[in-house]
Amino acid sequence: MEKIKSISARISGIDQSFVKKTQVRLDNLTKPQGSLGMLEDLAKQICGITAKDSPQLFNKVIFTIASDHGVTAEGVSAYPKEVTAQMVYNFLAGGAGINVLAKHIGAKVIVVDMGVCVDLKPDPRLVIRKIGLGTKNMAKGPAMTKEEAIKAVRAGIEIFQEEYKRGIDIAGTGDMGIGNTTAASAITACITGKSVEDVTGRGTGIDDKGLIKKINVIKKSISVNKPDSADPIDVLSKVGGFEIAGLAGIILTAASENVPVVIDGFISGAAALIAFCIEPKVKDYMIAAHCSVEKGHKIIMDYIGLKPLLNMDMRLGEGTGAALGMGLADASIKILTQMATFKSANVSERAK
Amino acid sequence: MEKIKSISARISGIDQSFVKKTQVRLDNLTKPQGSLGMLEDLAKQICGITAKDSPQLFNKVIFTIASDHGVTAEGVSAYPKEVTAQMVYNFLAGGAGINVLAKHIGAKVIVVDMGVCVDLKPDPRLVIRKIGLGTKNMAKGPAMTKEEAIKAVRAGIEIFQEEYKRGIDIAGTGDMGIGNTTAASAITACITGKSVEDVTGRGTGIDDKGLIKKINVIKKSISVNKPDSADPIDVLSKVGGFEIAGLAGIILTAASENVPVVIDGFISGAAALIAFCIEPKVKDYMIAAHCSVEKGHKIIMDYIGLKPLLNMDMRLGEGTGAALGMGLADASIKILTQMATFKSANVSERAK
Repeated sequence: MEKIKSISARISGIDQSFVKKTQVRLDNLTKPQGSLGMLEDLAKQICGITAKDSPQLFNKVIFTIASDHGVTAEGVSAYPKEVTAQMVYNFLAGGAGINVLAKHIGAKVIVVDMGVCVDLKPDPRLVIRKIGLGTKNMAKGPAMTKEEAIKAVRAGIEIFQEEYKRGIDIAGTGDMGIGNTTAASAITACITGKSVEDVTGRGTGIDDKGLIKKINVIKKSISVNKPDSADPIDVLSKVGGFEIAGLAGIILTAASENVPVVIDGFISGAAALIAFCIEPKVKDYMIAAHCSVEKGHKIIMDYIGLKPLLNMDMRLGEGTGAALGMGLADASIKILTQMATFKSANVSERAK
Repeated sequence: MEKIKSISARISGIDQSFVKKTQVRLDNLTKPQGSLGMLEDLAKQICGITAKDSPQLFNKVIFTIASDHGVTAEGVSAYPKEVTAQMVYNFLAGGAGINVLAKHIGAKVIVVDMGVCVDLKPDPRLVIRKIGLGTKNMAKGPAMTKEEAIKAVRAGIEIFQEEYKRGIDIAGTGDMGIGNTTAASAITACITGKSVEDVTGRGTGIDDKGLIKKINVIKKSISVNKPDSADPIDVLSKVGGFEIAGLAGIILTAASENVPVVIDGFISGAAALIAFCIEPKVKDYMIAAHCSVEKGHKIIMDYIGLKPLLNMDMRLGEGTGAALGMGLADASIKILTQMATFKSANVSERAK
């Protein structure tokens, strides 16, 4: 817990003087003031986070963390749990959605095994930080011990710090884990106080019957474990997942290093919620990439106070939304740094 | 009018067999079915338009058409009309928003002068197809003659055809013209039947008093000219603009050549509305890039039946939204053509 506390203590809040300076600069570019909307807000946020006039977003890194969930024994997913491991191999082979979209926007993907339920074949590109062979079935007891939850957050911190040595100008979060929307819904219900029905969706695509079962499993998990909604580590350990814990560590550490962090969909949102409960100042370092089809995601965004950039009916996870959001972040900085000013282009300003 | 009719007659409707084949192919990729939402819809639409299994979006071309508006004499804009010409020079020098965003997504920008109110310095990169030195003041009479309206649409057709010889895999529309939200609002009110108040926004940024004046000018223009809402060329000539007419020609011609066309914001939307009234089949070839802050834009989108990809509070025009939309179109085709299948990646499919 010491490491989590010391990282959180280093999150100081973004530099408002850079936000203000960037506003003035944007207003001098050859366009009506504010006419690029959220792109302008993004540019201001990134300058505030990095405390730079002209930040460069050269090194883009998406952390895609995989882990398994014991709660799949309850039949909460449309896919068999073997898919988690299979998809990790797919990430390493470059065939998944995240590989394609990361390449599209020029980002590197760091694939992490934080608790896939089988031992994966060693691969130089795979970061193995297993906390266990999947979580335990939360419908019957805590998903993990408090020590494991802390260890998983710490693993996220260390993974970020290790990669940060090679340079990260902007980070993104991603996940893989059959069963993880069940955990994310449970976390969301516990922390936001919304009903389980309000925060639970169809995940990879369960039918009406499956959805009712999933809601009941989440309710049971909460009543069996009684997570303390005021203690994010308690919530994480009882109804969370190793990848969610790891992503919370990634998000906190990005903020501690003044690196903007693009939050993917619902699972990453649950990790953002945990990070926000640990240290609310982390919010200003987050860029919400998109609003997921999973209905709990909007509740998370509203709770933290984030406005997603995209609303494209996506629900894949892996960091696919974060990749698209990162592309927009890139565009926002190019607008700031490459556009002409009214003066340099000899364009008349508006009548005063 | 013959040319417009012959181009429209060549718009046959998109090939549904390719839409269906693409759906099957998307469903075999390693992701839950439909989990990439609007990206998947985009890929299907582009395959249907091009009648190709694996279309390539190599040649991306944005047509940014500039023109002036006589109605600026009524004081409807926050900027002086000189800005239209100044911004054309800025486009040619590469300093405008559209230049930055087009470069970001790898698109070429074709800058067209279709009626800037001064003679511009010759430039090999500037396409000059002047219909006149700006339109006339529509608050006092028709903005242009019917012959001029037809000539402007035809110019758009020819500009597309000329560039098409060099290759266009996907087209985008863009505009520049101080005063052109006034014309776009008038067109939108005439064709959709909505009130002028419902379709009129602040353009480049007029204040409350300016907005009331603008609304009154539009009402006066409609009552003075009495456009026939069933005749798009009549509407265009009485309350339109040369760039709006030219963009309508671009849109129709893209569809006639089975090229997807990304529609920018409100001005391009008004052009799309004209094109849609000329030939409703053009709708399926349109990709709505974003929803503009200009409130008439959503009304246009709903009228045609388009769902914008982005909602980022943008209102710059020039094709800036189209550029971002084109980047997403690119991503959608990469998803289709670069992702692994369940079979090739040895990933288990969902339980049946």
